[in-house]
Amino acid sequence: MKQNSTLKIRFLGGVGEIGKNMTALEYGKDIIVIDAGVTFPSQDMPGIDLVIPDISYLTANKDRVRAIILTHGHEDHIGAISYILKDINVPIYGTKMSLALVETKLAEFKITKKMLKRVNPRDRINLGAFSVEFINVNHSIAGACALAITTPVGVVVHSGDFKIDMTPINGNMMDFTRLSEIGKKGVMLLMCESTNVERTGYAMSEHVVGQTLERLFLANVKRRIIIATFSSNIYRLQQIFNIAAQNKRKVAISGRSMLNVVDAAVKIGELNIPQGILIDIEKIKNVPDKDLVVISTGSQGEPMSVLTRMASDSYPQLTITPNDTIIISASPIPGNEKSIYDVINNLYRKGAEVVYESIENIHVSGHACQEELKIFHSLIKPKFFIPIHGEYRHLKKHTLLAKELGMKDYQMIIPDIGDTVILNGKTMRFGDKVPAGSRYVDGLQIDDSNIYVRDRLHLAEEGLIIALCCVSSLSGELLKAPDIISKGVVLSDAQTEAIRDIVSKTLSGFDLKRIGDKREVKNKIRSAIRTFVIKKTKNNPMILPVITQV
Amino acid sequence: MKQNSTLKIRFLGGVGEIGKNMTALEYGKDIIVIDAGVTFPSQDMPGIDLVIPDISYLTANKDRVRAIILTHGHEDHIGAISYILKDINVPIYGTKMSLALVETKLAEFKITKKMLKRVNPRDRINLGAFSVEFINVNHSIAGACALAITTPVGVVVHSGDFKIDMTPINGNMMDFTRLSEIGKKGVMLLMCESTNVERTGYAMSEHVVGQTLERLFLANVKRRIIIATFSSNIYRLQQIFNIAAQNKRKVAISGRSMLNVVDAAVKIGELNIPQGILIDIEKIKNVPDKDLVVISTGSQGEPMSVLTRMASDSYPQLTITPNDTIIISASPIPGNEKSIYDVINNLYRKGAEVVYESIENIHVSGHACQEELKIFHSLIKPKFFIPIHGEYRHLKKHTLLAKELGMKDYQMIIPDIGDTVILNGKTMRFGDKVPAGSRYVDGLQIDDSNIYVRDRLHLAEEGLIIALCCVSSLSGELLKAPDIISKGVVLSDAQTEAIRDIVSKTLSGFDLKRIGDKREVKNKIRSAIRTFVIKKTKNNPMILPVITQV
Repeated sequence: MKQNSTLKIRFLGGVGEIGKNMTALEYGKDIIVIDAGVTFPSQDMPGIDLVIPDISYLTANKDRVRAIILTHGHEDHIGAISYILKDINVPIYGTKMSLALVETKLAEFKITKKMLKRVNPRDRINLGAFSVEFINVNHSIAGACALAITTPVGVVVHSGDFKIDMTPINGNMMDFTRLSEIGKKGVMLLMCESTNVERTGYAMSEHVVGQTLERLFLANVKRRIIIATFSSNIYRLQQIFNIAAQNKRKVAISGRSMLNVVDAAVKIGELNIPQGILIDIEKIKNVPDKDLVVISTGSQGEPMSVLTRMASDSYPQLTITPNDTIIISASPIPGNEKSIYDVINNLYRKGAEVVYESIENIHVSGHACQEELKIFHSLIKPKFFIPIHGEYRHLKKHTLLAKELGMKDYQMIIPDIGDTVILNGKTMRFGDKVPAGSRYVDGLQIDDSNIYVRDRLHLAEEGLIIALCCVSSLSGELLKAPDIISKGVVLSDAQTEAIRDIVSKTLSGFDLKRIGDKREVKNKIRSAIRTFVIKKTKNNPMILPVITQV
Repeated sequence: MKQNSTLKIRFLGGVGEIGKNMTALEYGKDIIVIDAGVTFPSQDMPGIDLVIPDISYLTANKDRVRAIILTHGHEDHIGAISYILKDINVPIYGTKMSLALVETKLAEFKITKKMLKRVNPRDRINLGAFSVEFINVNHSIAGACALAITTPVGVVVHSGDFKIDMTPINGNMMDFTRLSEIGKKGVMLLMCESTNVERTGYAMSEHVVGQTLERLFLANVKRRIIIATFSSNIYRLQQIFNIAAQNKRKVAISGRSMLNVVDAAVKIGELNIPQGILIDIEKIKNVPDKDLVVISTGSQGEPMSVLTRMASDSYPQLTITPNDTIIISASPIPGNEKSIYDVINNLYRKGAEVVYESIENIHVSGHACQEELKIFHSLIKPKFFIPIHGEYRHLKKHTLLAKELGMKDYQMIIPDIGDTVILNGKTMRFGDKVPAGSRYVDGLQIDDSNIYVRDRLHLAEEGLIIALCCVSSLSGELLKAPDIISKGVVLSDAQTEAIRDIVSKTLSGFDLKRIGDKREVKNKIRSAIRTFVIKKTKNNPMILPVITQV
């Protein structure tokens, strides 16, 4: 066996969730990339808009990258494409829904599409040493696929994000037949998602949401209905359109991302809007409450979303009244709880009715629960197993579930972000580490070093004191008493005065005329101020001594 | 009826949860205050340690305040006492457990105790126009009470925080007898907590946790057991001690707050530690894993807590090994999810086993669920009802539950923070608004205006640019090119240079020699920089022009 006749799996992406956002498979000189997604920032990343994967390993090896393969079109799987295409320009393979959403993104970034390659489930594409087959699975978006990747050392099955829905809205259940054929032929490695591994039983069918909506439409016949949901969940939108049509209500769409997705989905035939039902959001004032449904963004309480603006009276097209029933057809993504509950509280304050997950079956998860995971494992019967898509605790739980199904410890590895796992067909082990993880996107900028976020966290936690010293370049003397400026720190006048004295005194110990490098004097000032401020306030602000010579 | 013969209820405290932390009852010249608690800061309050109620209404009327009445000893009911006693020095009434915890706090602040008045359940105290009776209820702390407050316009029942536990650890079930007697005599107003109003059925008994713990001790006979829980839950601690004794394990306590509470509870006889079982945390190295239980703080993933430090290898007394089973006997308080899951992930990475709420019945809520709330309402049968202790959505749901029990809209009011509700025995209506809500505590400082937090949020979200201009006081000319300093903003060298030019150019439009008030020129500089930076980076940092004349 040659030195390089091993398969290397590199976990490049993400923050928090392991094996999410971006994973690379490498054999000999060929690399293929699975997904190119973003993570939304958590509370310890103030002001950050997005987190994209660190692709420095891929850019360093860009001649070897054959393609990006998309399992499905959610942001955490496609959201980084616009940011990485300028560094790595390779074909992108995905189903028509995934690519339709990628096109929307590229249009926003004014990137011309040319490398997008549409595939259908059961299609197989050859990429150097790899051959990739797409297999239909159920998920909360159309066109979701698992991947069966044939490599020289054996077949790798990657589950993507999936659930098993026996009554799916578009009629296409997970491809049990193909998965079991592949399992029967022998699978070397299963990489399987772990999102819901802590939940017993089965995820409910998307169909259940339709039943709840039907009941809610009947219970609110005289009221205006506003439904906030994820724009990418075409099945949910399809059900809302169908039920609205049954109830002879018009439907208005609000929110840019919602309009974009509806447009894209209609164009490719994934969404069928009943004739004459759609009405422009600008014209809803002419429609009686009982004849209207408004579909909006904002199911996570996002600050600029339509629902949040409605709740704070800053959405001119629609004013919430006590005759509104707002249905929030989503569950809070961890970290968004406070935002969405603030919106709900404000809607209640306006006298509206609000229906949300803790009181009704108005949302179902798109991820497999324990029994579904067991089915997937049993169909694939892999030799090795790597849990993916979850925090470490989920991956750990997923190995315990695999053990219940008969797997042994040596057959499993729990990777971390940045890890490489090496397989030769007979064994699986950890390999080298490569740069991986997160790059922060803030507005138009990418913060590679993360130093800006560290600075911001310091400013946010402790505030800032600036000590400004104007010094004569001739005499080296202070030209005036230092200016003390503070932001985010509570200082009394007496304390500010004391800091001014401390700075003057510290400066007087130096012959500033003769000092080129002012680092030492700045450090002295900084530490003198810090000692004083910590003692007086227990705060440890960022301290910025500025010495300007004039 | 005299003009002032009304009862005024003022909702003074809290942030987010209405009617929490602090409520004042006012009749004629008498005011009594129920609870004096803190709220822990949320993610939009960077660097803030605590949020205490705004007591300016009480300080303005301090001669009328008769007492502070404590329903129980949790932080959100007693945590602000140390901060307000210097402004309002009145007697504090509470059960022995509540007062023991208050004493611990006062000791920390070096305040001598003298106004603490111990009461027992069924005690009644007279305070001007009010007469207050304490009634035993179940909760996740010993000594929790509901209050029956007789006023000249009728009886007010305040539930405090409660649940109904038929198998309580200390044997004292909620005082059904007394509550039903009071209900039978006629209650004008019920103020009832709403925390779990969205949960159907009943809260589980604290006893259930003991059963789970017994099972976990049996399943881990050869392993070291570490249990993280809330220090104030004496019943939970009692069960851990009892089960440890049954299993012949020694118990070590770690974490200052845990030690404080255990000390206080033992002293007043609320906690009975089996003889010879306690061992100093410094001496656990001599005890075999199988013979040891460690009780620690950190069940919420608090940064400096013992469990967090164990998980990051920075707790010298104990190193986590694969022979450890860590039991987290708590559920994450909303907002703490990420912190505690980070701790759990790190414990798993060290090879330890972790047991937490999503997999075991290892925690029960201390708050009444729907059926318990219905029992409370039915015992009290009030004329009027005000839901308290919850976000607006919880209070709204609580009115819907009361409606199911036969209440009409005119009998209920949903208050907001700062509201006053006025009752005369026959009607209930909204009154005037008074200053209320939150004051931020940061280290030793209290940020009254909240401007510091606003500054910090701006700094955190967008960063900071300082433009520093040294100007000759003689000629009014710039003495050197402006210094541009940025923190938390990604600026290229070229962009910094461009900002320098923009500032110079803006300054050149002013005759600085003649300008006393530099506000206008600063504003011009600020807006010129802002326009440039937003265009180039889409960021809107805090911009601080500094003009210093030398």
